Amino acid sequence: MDMAKVYNFSAGPAVLPHQVLAEAQSELLDWHGSGMSVMEMSHRGKEFMEIIHDAEQDLRQLMGIPAGYKVLFLQGGASLQFAMAPLNLLGDKDSIDIVNTGHWSKLAIKEAKRYAKVNVAASSEDRNFCYIPEEASWQRDPNAAYLHYTSNETIGGLQFPYIPAEQHGVPLVCDMSSDFLSREIDVSRFGMIYAGAQKNIGPSGLTVLIIREGLLGKARADIPTMLNYQVHADADSMYNTPGTYPIYIAGLVFKWLKEQGGVKGIATRNEEKAGLLYHVIDSSGGFYSTHIEQPFRSKMNVVFKLKDEALDEIFLLEARKNGLAQLKGHRAVGGMRASIYNAMPIEGVKSLVNFMQDFARQYG
Amino acid sequence: MDMAKVYNFSAGPAVLPHQVLAEAQSELLDWHGSGMSVMEMSHRGKEFMEIIHDAEQDLRQLMGIPAGYKVLFLQGGASLQFAMAPLNLLGDKDSIDIVNTGHWSKLAIKEAKRYAKVNVAASSEDRNFCYIPEEASWQRDPNAAYLHYTSNETIGGLQFPYIPAEQHGVPLVCDMSSDFLSREIDVSRFGMIYAGAQKNIGPSGLTVLIIREGLLGKARADIPTMLNYQVHADADSMYNTPGTYPIYIAGLVFKWLKEQGGVKGIATRNEEKAGLLYHVIDSSGGFYSTHIEQPFRSKMNVVFKLKDEALDEIFLLEARKNGLAQLKGHRAVGGMRASIYNAMPIEGVKSLVNFMQDFARQYG
Repeated sequence: MDMAKVYNFSAGPAVLPHQVLAEAQSELLDWHGSGMSVMEMSHRGKEFMEIIHDAEQDLRQLMGIPAGYKVLFLQGGASLQFAMAPLNLLGDKDSIDIVNTGHWSKLAIKEAKRYAKVNVAASSEDRNFCYIPEEASWQRDPNAAYLHYTSNETIGGLQFPYIPAEQHGVPLVCDMSSDFLSREIDVSRFGMIYAGAQKNIGPSGLTVLIIREGLLGKARADIPTMLNYQVHADADSMYNTPGTYPIYIAGLVFKWLKEQGGVKGIATRNEEKAGLLYHVIDSSGGFYSTHIEQPFRSKMNVVFKLKDEALDEIFLLEARKNGLAQLKGHRAVGGMRASIYNAMPIEGVKSLVNFMQDFARQYG
Repeated sequence: MDMAKVYNFSAGPAVLPHQVLAEAQSELLDWHGSGMSVMEMSHRGKEFMEIIHDAEQDLRQLMGIPAGYKVLFLQGGASLQFAMAPLNLLGDKDSIDIVNTGHWSKLAIKEAKRYAKVNVAASSEDRNFCYIPEEASWQRDPNAAYLHYTSNETIGGLQFPYIPAEQHGVPLVCDMSSDFLSREIDVSRFGMIYAGAQKNIGPSGLTVLIIREGLLGKARADIPTMLNYQVHADADSMYNTPGTYPIYIAGLVFKWLKEQGGVKGIATRNEEKAGLLYHVIDSSGGFYSTHIEQPFRSKMNVVFKLKDEALDEIFLLEARKNGLAQLKGHRAVGGMRASIYNAMPIEGVKSLVNFMQDFARQYG
């Protein structure tokens, strides 16, 4: 099949590896000679049990998830975790620390406030979320149940270049939705990590959660059974029927990632991709600009503006004609956003860079 | 591709129409010339907005859903609805009526009891759920917030042959997970209907909910935002990223169903399929039997036993050799179960019937 090549810079759901989609296509009607599509399989049958087991093992290997951590495959996206985290982790404490770095942090704060006292330990709202406040300046509560932060702000294009230190034994909880598996991290430094799948993992409808076993069993007694981490942990994510197809695709993505040299290999490529884009922005003589301070520029979501806003529509139209799709920034911040998750090939970024240079020459 | 034909009688996730899977396969890499897989599309882009809009319109047409009802595409399965229903619908009432007809009713009761006084208006537990108590005998509470029932018990094989009458203005709420779209119903008689997708709708990870608008806005103030029907209704199921791929497949299933003569057409075929199976059971001279009383026998899940339990394993092995898969009954009831949802072709049922007759001759 010959089709016009389109590079899809959507912030999520987002581009998936071609190899993964091709494999899913080839076995869509008949998975491994079973005579069934994965979508038709009983979640408790041996075929699907093998799929979910392999997906978990591959993820554990990719991230070096230590023993003593559970991996859960849930539904509802990060938005449901904004409630589930406090409802499950507060225990006998009454407050949590949250770092406010933008849109998604703010939603996490808003929802958490319904169930806990929230101490905003640090915020960069004073300067439109262009930076992350120095860790030494954070006002942390030694009695917080946990400290929550958003490792990458998908909308703002702001990314933590480090993992905050644990203090006073307060566990770290991280919404890693948009940079999960994009760079090496030490899982043992976290109490819990969660991520909506639709950026670096697979299709939407799946949330991956990694939790230290010691944090289980603290859920509020009155929460719905389906919102209790312990219930899902005890049932190995099979308390009820999970979203089987997204889990299957995630498993294919994990296998693909192993072939890319794992997280270390993909991180190198991600650095290179982001480097190309920020270079063209920085060397455009002001035609393109980003307000994010250098150390905190996201390697997943490159947010930038054109010097003249009146050119935005032309930029988007011309880009689309060149096979470069979904570059419009989120309405909350305007301008442009190029999401360059793991599955975006470097050729796509090079194509965008060339287009941006040509466009700046023509309209600059 | 030539593969051994397998008929999959799984209770869910379950068989999907071949035509739907073939279409999904053909456009998996490139939906309608967009250059993207449906899995890669932004849920807010025009392509996916068209997909979800068409899915809803086709469902409305298939079921004759009146104006004044919202259709929501949610996550979490029926199990999450067991909590969401009382948390959203109780309002200023403090009790609900539930009819207990088996495994799924019991789970609905258990979860609802955590949030409301539950009046079990009727139960057939006294005779192992082989019947549905006469409606006139139900002990209904005129002050209940709603009456909940399970139209088809997937595990027990027990199905309501009618829609209960509304009394005292108490709305009906129905878990229709395993017979949704299998027969004509008058939606206007319900306050709310919900169904996990993985039987008659599509892949797991999607819950379809149909709710009378007048029942919105009564949610308990302290429930998670993601559990509030009003939030999802206001956002047209786009409060956060929905499970896009299952919604797309559901849309293909709805189109396929329209080609089958709609719900009326499929209902005729479902009657015929169930009739063939119950006939072979009834005419087996006791070799096969079902404990479900005739009027309440499920047309979706045909539950039966062999005279001699020692033959169960041989039956299952021989069936599998004949391309008849997933016939083992749920561990809670034992024996056999043939789930024959909309997508099970009549050829599959005929093949099973022939096998059952041969098996009875050989081992009877």
